[in-house]
Amino acid sequence: MIRFLFLLILAIVARAAAPTVVERWGIFETELRGPADGNPFVDVNLTAVFTPTGGAPSREVAGFYDGNGVYRLRFMPETVGSWSFVTHSNLPSLDAQTGKFVVTAAATNNHGPVRVRDTFHFAYADGTPFRQIGTTCYAWTHQGDALEEQTLRTLAASPFNKLRMCVFPKNYDWNKNDPPLYPFAGKPPTHWDYSRFNPSFFQHLERRIAQLGSLGLEADLILFHPYDKGRWGFDRMEATVDDRYLRYVVARLAAYRNVWWSLANEYDFMKEKTENDWDRLFQIVQRTDPHDHLRSIHNGTMLYNHTQPWVTHASIQNGAAVLDAERAVLYRDAYRKPIVFDEVKYEGDIPRRWGNLTAEELVLRFWMGTVAGTYVGHGETYLHPDDDVLWWSKGGTLRGQSPARLAFLRRVLEDSPPGGLNPIDKWQDTHTAGVPGEYYLVYFGHEKPAQWLFALHKDRVKEGDRFAVEVIDTWSMTISRTPGVFVAKKRDAYTFEDQGQKAVHLPGLPYHALRIRRLP
Amino acid sequence: MIRFLFLLILAIVARAAAPTVVERWGIFETELRGPADGNPFVDVNLTAVFTPTGGAPSREVAGFYDGNGVYRLRFMPETVGSWSFVTHSNLPSLDAQTGKFVVTAAATNNHGPVRVRDTFHFAYADGTPFRQIGTTCYAWTHQGDALEEQTLRTLAASPFNKLRMCVFPKNYDWNKNDPPLYPFAGKPPTHWDYSRFNPSFFQHLERRIAQLGSLGLEADLILFHPYDKGRWGFDRMEATVDDRYLRYVVARLAAYRNVWWSLANEYDFMKEKTENDWDRLFQIVQRTDPHDHLRSIHNGTMLYNHTQPWVTHASIQNGAAVLDAERAVLYRDAYRKPIVFDEVKYEGDIPRRWGNLTAEELVLRFWMGTVAGTYVGHGETYLHPDDDVLWWSKGGTLRGQSPARLAFLRRVLEDSPPGGLNPIDKWQDTHTAGVPGEYYLVYFGHEKPAQWLFALHKDRVKEGDRFAVEVIDTWSMTISRTPGVFVAKKRDAYTFEDQGQKAVHLPGLPYHALRIRRLP
Repeated sequence: MIRFLFLLILAIVARAAAPTVVERWGIFETELRGPADGNPFVDVNLTAVFTPTGGAPSREVAGFYDGNGVYRLRFMPETVGSWSFVTHSNLPSLDAQTGKFVVTAAATNNHGPVRVRDTFHFAYADGTPFRQIGTTCYAWTHQGDALEEQTLRTLAASPFNKLRMCVFPKNYDWNKNDPPLYPFAGKPPTHWDYSRFNPSFFQHLERRIAQLGSLGLEADLILFHPYDKGRWGFDRMEATVDDRYLRYVVARLAAYRNVWWSLANEYDFMKEKTENDWDRLFQIVQRTDPHDHLRSIHNGTMLYNHTQPWVTHASIQNGAAVLDAERAVLYRDAYRKPIVFDEVKYEGDIPRRWGNLTAEELVLRFWMGTVAGTYVGHGETYLHPDDDVLWWSKGGTLRGQSPARLAFLRRVLEDSPPGGLNPIDKWQDTHTAGVPGEYYLVYFGHEKPAQWLFALHKDRVKEGDRFAVEVIDTWSMTISRTPGVFVAKKRDAYTFEDQGQKAVHLPGLPYHALRIRRLP
Repeated sequence: MIRFLFLLILAIVARAAAPTVVERWGIFETELRGPADGNPFVDVNLTAVFTPTGGAPSREVAGFYDGNGVYRLRFMPETVGSWSFVTHSNLPSLDAQTGKFVVTAAATNNHGPVRVRDTFHFAYADGTPFRQIGTTCYAWTHQGDALEEQTLRTLAASPFNKLRMCVFPKNYDWNKNDPPLYPFAGKPPTHWDYSRFNPSFFQHLERRIAQLGSLGLEADLILFHPYDKGRWGFDRMEATVDDRYLRYVVARLAAYRNVWWSLANEYDFMKEKTENDWDRLFQIVQRTDPHDHLRSIHNGTMLYNHTQPWVTHASIQNGAAVLDAERAVLYRDAYRKPIVFDEVKYEGDIPRRWGNLTAEELVLRFWMGTVAGTYVGHGETYLHPDDDVLWWSKGGTLRGQSPARLAFLRRVLEDSPPGGLNPIDKWQDTHTAGVPGEYYLVYFGHEKPAQWLFALHKDRVKEGDRFAVEVIDTWSMTISRTPGVFVAKKRDAYTFEDQGQKAVHLPGLPYHALRIRRLP
């Protein structure tokens, strides 16, 4: 007993002496105790202002009620050094609380949140390029621990660095099971107390998001979706409930550096909401997120106006646009933001025209999107008659042949210029992206050329520049150096060719690409 | 002499007795006399408020100085009945002048100005559909009367119902000649008094616009362009000069019902102006045009944000988008406005990659644009070594083979549903537009099918619906009815086929289309 008291005193002294330490882009969290009676979700206002020493701007952060008289504040510090905070609340017991903490440099595997870079691309906050290779498991966090942990193991071994996932459970073909947890207090299926959140639901969700982060995946969190159809009613809540829900989600989750906000999946299929509603919901997220995470919205057949200032990048469903780089590039022109084709149909075998692509066709879409200077998302819908688990909806295991090829593409991209690939000579059907004069990816898609007469658009190319050419088999995942060096010579007003008019030999098979790099 | 006085008195009495009469969407014009000294272009403010009897809203209209002490007010009345006006001016002699006139029904060939209808299409104010088949003669009004009148004769015999044309003269390859008139007082090439307009220049311009109107052509008037390169300096005037110029053009020309405002050609190639400048210039036109004519802006390689509220339709240059209906349709999705591909490369033989399409290729672009639910513009750049007159720039005569095919297309469109053609089952590579259940155009482009298995997307089709099919040879300009009737039977979740799985026979040649109409 004396020993226990001694240790306890030691612990208290240590805690008082050593300041709280959190790494840059990590999560600072503090817990406050307050009343559990009444309805803290709506009765209590709690915010805190976080201020770094040295005069950098403060950030206001909303706290949230986590049940059982526990209130929390979470914050993702974006600069190293000393920080302090002070709380504001309508409850005296939660008001004017203060604290300090120290922010240290990020660990090597922590690159911070992903931001837009150079109009059309992404990078982590530390400057590391983020080349999006996304996938989708809409309802994976609603499947119970065994399957959810299997999904995490699958993702750990996959090429994917972003996962699209819904907050709300899903009611759709191949996903009719009840979820273990619901976001609101009340009784399923429809007797909800929309004024009270279920902390257990959100504790579970945020644990899964943190686990994705530790595996290097961004969580593209879908805040609303139409796949409820009134079964629970989360697709048709009142505006005040929608707004309070968004504020609660942002207060809980904005400190997770790997969160992206996807306002909706197939927003235009949610007939209960108008475009003005979506504008309002976007602006609530923009205004309340102190960390300005990426924001977009995914369409059914009608695109949201992605030129709106609160949209950071375009999240697009279109199964045909990435069949052709000259289609895909048009969205770049229209929106001048990064373009992510988050849904391009699925590798699978279900009897839906959007769900039975071959792996070859899905991989083609990734490469076409790449040479359009855009990004593509994967999805898999193979029927599993034994367990009804389709990756697209529930997660589990991947059985398709595309992920290995996407891992290969990811390696090619990781070896590409850090500023991203942009179309070379767009609107001329060249199917080429890169950095003029330095680096080119040419993709032939379904075409089966036996040779390619070396030709580069004139931009930043000079007579005598020397280039190496490699032939990439995107399906067999091989890269072969073409012998010799190609030396630029002006051909016409638009193009340089090799001085000996040399051609690159190709095997006459589909799904091939060229990588052309300038030699020093 | 007595006889002359008698007639003069008669005329004066008649003028006093009979009210001025103008047809609906015609031009009411009144002339006021005022000072010719000082600088009336900048010293004198003159506006008038036009009010119809019966309580409909008034319109404020700017007057303009036309030289020699003459001030004019022009107005296009949009409703029949009695109208009155009262002037406002900082000059007492021009202030508080009043007048009345009567507006009668429009003549049968006067359909009013063109407006946007049903999001993606156009119609005249009287409801008549406007199916845009445009062409371009950028500098035709700067070529002198002989050539200009030849251009008008050519247009009269052409299929075109819209002409893109520049206010300012053009300094570009194959167009280096000095214009007969300049828009400002002063001395060419660069000694301009930018505070004084040249009324003769604008009188000439408006006469040409009126002549186009009488031939049934809309004048898509390009207000700025980069093809000056400092030779005269109209591409790099100060903002105050740009703004005054726009106000003067609008005051003179907005009463012409066939005017469209094209803020610029290749706006992004005018490096002296920023995007904010274009926003401002658009808003000046929007605010000062009492008749709200169509407004757009044409791009080089960077698209303007056509979602801006002051843009009525998207005017796009892209030579590749209309090679593929699934490309072209993406602009509709992004902008939700009528899409006009005003520059898609040219039928011709000049040594520029944008100026040597075959006629077949240009006609293909029109049909692809049509089945994407968009509109396309023609252009011709055949070299004329004898006179250096290329249609694209100077007008003159048409020598290409596409206009006859565009006349054929126009007849097909005139026989199509009045509400316009929209893509059927977009993003599925169907290359089909129409009205679901009623009317379909299927276009095969470069493909050479020998048969087409009858299939319609399910939207608004029922079992037993009966359809007639015609094969259209878009090049040879023939339409052949396929024998028999096709009777709809459900095939799968997306499609109806013929109940006997009957196919349509085709000749196995490119440039063919189908017209499918439901039988009563």
